[in-house]
Amino acid sequence: MWRDLTPIGRDAESKGYRRFAWTEADRDCRDWFRSQAETRGLTYELDRNGNQWAWLGDPTREDAVVTGSHLDSVPDGGPFDGPLGVVSSFAALDELRHRGAEFTRPLAIVNFGDEEGARFGLACVGSRLTAGQLTRDQAHRLRDADGVTLPRAMEQAGHDPEAIGPDPERLARIGAFVELHVEQGRALDLTGDRIGVASAIWPHGRWRFDFRGEANHAGTTRLVDRRDPMLPYAETVLAARREAQLAGAVATFGKIAVEPNGVNAIPSLVRGWLDSRAADQSALDTVVTAVEKAAREHAARHGVDLDVVRESFTPVVEFGHALRDELTGILGPDTPVLGTGAGHDAGILSASIPTAMLFVRNPTGVSHSPAEFAAEDDCLAGVTALADVLEGLACR
Amino acid sequence: MWRDLTPIGRDAESKGYRRFAWTEADRDCRDWFRSQAETRGLTYELDRNGNQWAWLGDPTREDAVVTGSHLDSVPDGGPFDGPLGVVSSFAALDELRHRGAEFTRPLAIVNFGDEEGARFGLACVGSRLTAGQLTRDQAHRLRDADGVTLPRAMEQAGHDPEAIGPDPERLARIGAFVELHVEQGRALDLTGDRIGVASAIWPHGRWRFDFRGEANHAGTTRLVDRRDPMLPYAETVLAARREAQLAGAVATFGKIAVEPNGVNAIPSLVRGWLDSRAADQSALDTVVTAVEKAAREHAARHGVDLDVVRESFTPVVEFGHALRDELTGILGPDTPVLGTGAGHDAGILSASIPTAMLFVRNPTGVSHSPAEFAAEDDCLAGVTALADVLEGLACR
Repeated sequence: MWRDLTPIGRDAESKGYRRFAWTEADRDCRDWFRSQAETRGLTYELDRNGNQWAWLGDPTREDAVVTGSHLDSVPDGGPFDGPLGVVSSFAALDELRHRGAEFTRPLAIVNFGDEEGARFGLACVGSRLTAGQLTRDQAHRLRDADGVTLPRAMEQAGHDPEAIGPDPERLARIGAFVELHVEQGRALDLTGDRIGVASAIWPHGRWRFDFRGEANHAGTTRLVDRRDPMLPYAETVLAARREAQLAGAVATFGKIAVEPNGVNAIPSLVRGWLDSRAADQSALDTVVTAVEKAAREHAARHGVDLDVVRESFTPVVEFGHALRDELTGILGPDTPVLGTGAGHDAGILSASIPTAMLFVRNPTGVSHSPAEFAAEDDCLAGVTALADVLEGLACR
Repeated sequence: MWRDLTPIGRDAESKGYRRFAWTEADRDCRDWFRSQAETRGLTYELDRNGNQWAWLGDPTREDAVVTGSHLDSVPDGGPFDGPLGVVSSFAALDELRHRGAEFTRPLAIVNFGDEEGARFGLACVGSRLTAGQLTRDQAHRLRDADGVTLPRAMEQAGHDPEAIGPDPERLARIGAFVELHVEQGRALDLTGDRIGVASAIWPHGRWRFDFRGEANHAGTTRLVDRRDPMLPYAETVLAARREAQLAGAVATFGKIAVEPNGVNAIPSLVRGWLDSRAADQSALDTVVTAVEKAAREHAARHGVDLDVVRESFTPVVEFGHALRDELTGILGPDTPVLGTGAGHDAGILSASIPTAMLFVRNPTGVSHSPAEFAAEDDCLAGVTALADVLEGLACR
């Protein structure tokens, strides 16, 4: 199962994954999901928002237990972020059948579409649409770097973009959602545990900083005549690091677009994206406000215009204590409970339905990189833990 | 003539030009050149290195007077940088025929290929090859951003890449080369002159800074665990400005490439290109050495590896005094003589043959931008001055 999935969308040079929403690699991942569902005799469904479902038992009955994650990736992502949750879901079902478990509630495995937002810039598009946290009109305005709109990309992939939108009937049928995910930090490695349960997702957001100056010849324009947007951009990158350090938060400029991006041309535009997250809202506000203030001061000093746009934002997500306590009851009271700076579909859904997350140890903490790694023993422990949880929830 | 050329390779959105070597826009410019030559009954030639020539008189006779410039552009360049020299050459020939001038030396108009180096990263490829300052093997190793090699691009455009290389016979037939160019600064505007003569081209070069860190999740990786190459890059951008200011030079980071370039990924690679120029070699050395030193210190502090590669370099070019004095003799003793930070084919050829340049006033100094501008009166004064120079040199 894992072997069939690993070659899909893998770049030969970087060894990283490039599984972006509604591309060929994404289609291949989706074909893989459907074939896994059908091989197991599960009822396959593609919902209006492009999320895939594999049902054991009656999909129309209420109180279903759902598990799963996503198969798409960031640019040059690792093999575990997302796919580990989907593969473990199928493996946990196999394990439960092997145990001869008798299901008293419907069970479904889900692959949420476009979780990473690598192509259209907004994360968790599939679950946001379903939960009504993103409207059809907002989604229709999303564009990729080549100017292709989300509806056009969906159409090209054979999906009807007019059908997308909130899906409250579907959510109403779900009694609990549990997402297993590789940890994206080293907390479990530091405590020596294979498996943990999520407490909360830090509030996080993405802000686009557009520094607009004046394109000019890099060889002949005197320094005093320049309006070079690269200079306030550089100051802002350093300010972000400084402010994050002060607030115990994280802040990153990892994506940039420069125009005209010529060696001998002063840029007309430097567009940088800030990703920032903190344990609470007030710390996050402090960081972002201070970074924007520094950016405005440096832009003004260089005669550069600045626009700051908040492209996405997710407030703190505290997973419901009832379901979380059920999980630690099943897995044992010593199971670590930990927060995370990463966003997840589980975070989106937790506003609508009882939701929990399991984390599998990541010995290096590396994620969103080809070097992302989890040991086979830990992954197998993850499958067992997920099987235990599903048995506890769906086979009572 | 100007009207036929202006729409070619112009981007509808930016209004800037994207005439890159061996592309369709380049081919259209070349077709335009050939048709201008043929309309005037000139003998058209395409040389082994992709430079175009239009001859009046016997191309095989020695002591020819050559004028011209280039038709390619930087990304989103302006309409004058290059084309003004070619258009003015044809217009000056028309003016001389109108005057009834009798030519005692052969005259040629040239369009040098790939002057800006926008596609393959090296400027003045056509003239460098001809002058033996770039070998066939070096040229064959050039690649564009999509990985297309120069020979492959030439082939696709119908030009034999095996034929390229030094062309000493051709150079031996040229007695003088005069290039007219829009000024890329405001020196003439500040003195109130329409036309100037070049004294020298500043030494200049391009250095590539590869900062290699570790890709990781921007939300979950603690600041202390990061090896983020964007941070030393930002420090280096600021150091370049500081050092250029101290040395009275210019230094610019105008082009950047980031991997994986995802909003929520710490970059694995930030590649920045430094363009630096100064009035003399020692000032330039001071700047580049100090920038590299700062880059190394900041890279080490952030656990980031750094490679610095000098991608191109052109030492100071002092145009020959004899030809320059002939020009000021023809144009009048009050004609300003000025240096420039921009590289030109004339700078390459000056190592092999007597070479001079005329500058046309640029009221804003803006260049390498869609906003580049020269007034019609000044352009016409440029044509008259070039006609006077050609008459003085070729009709004695």
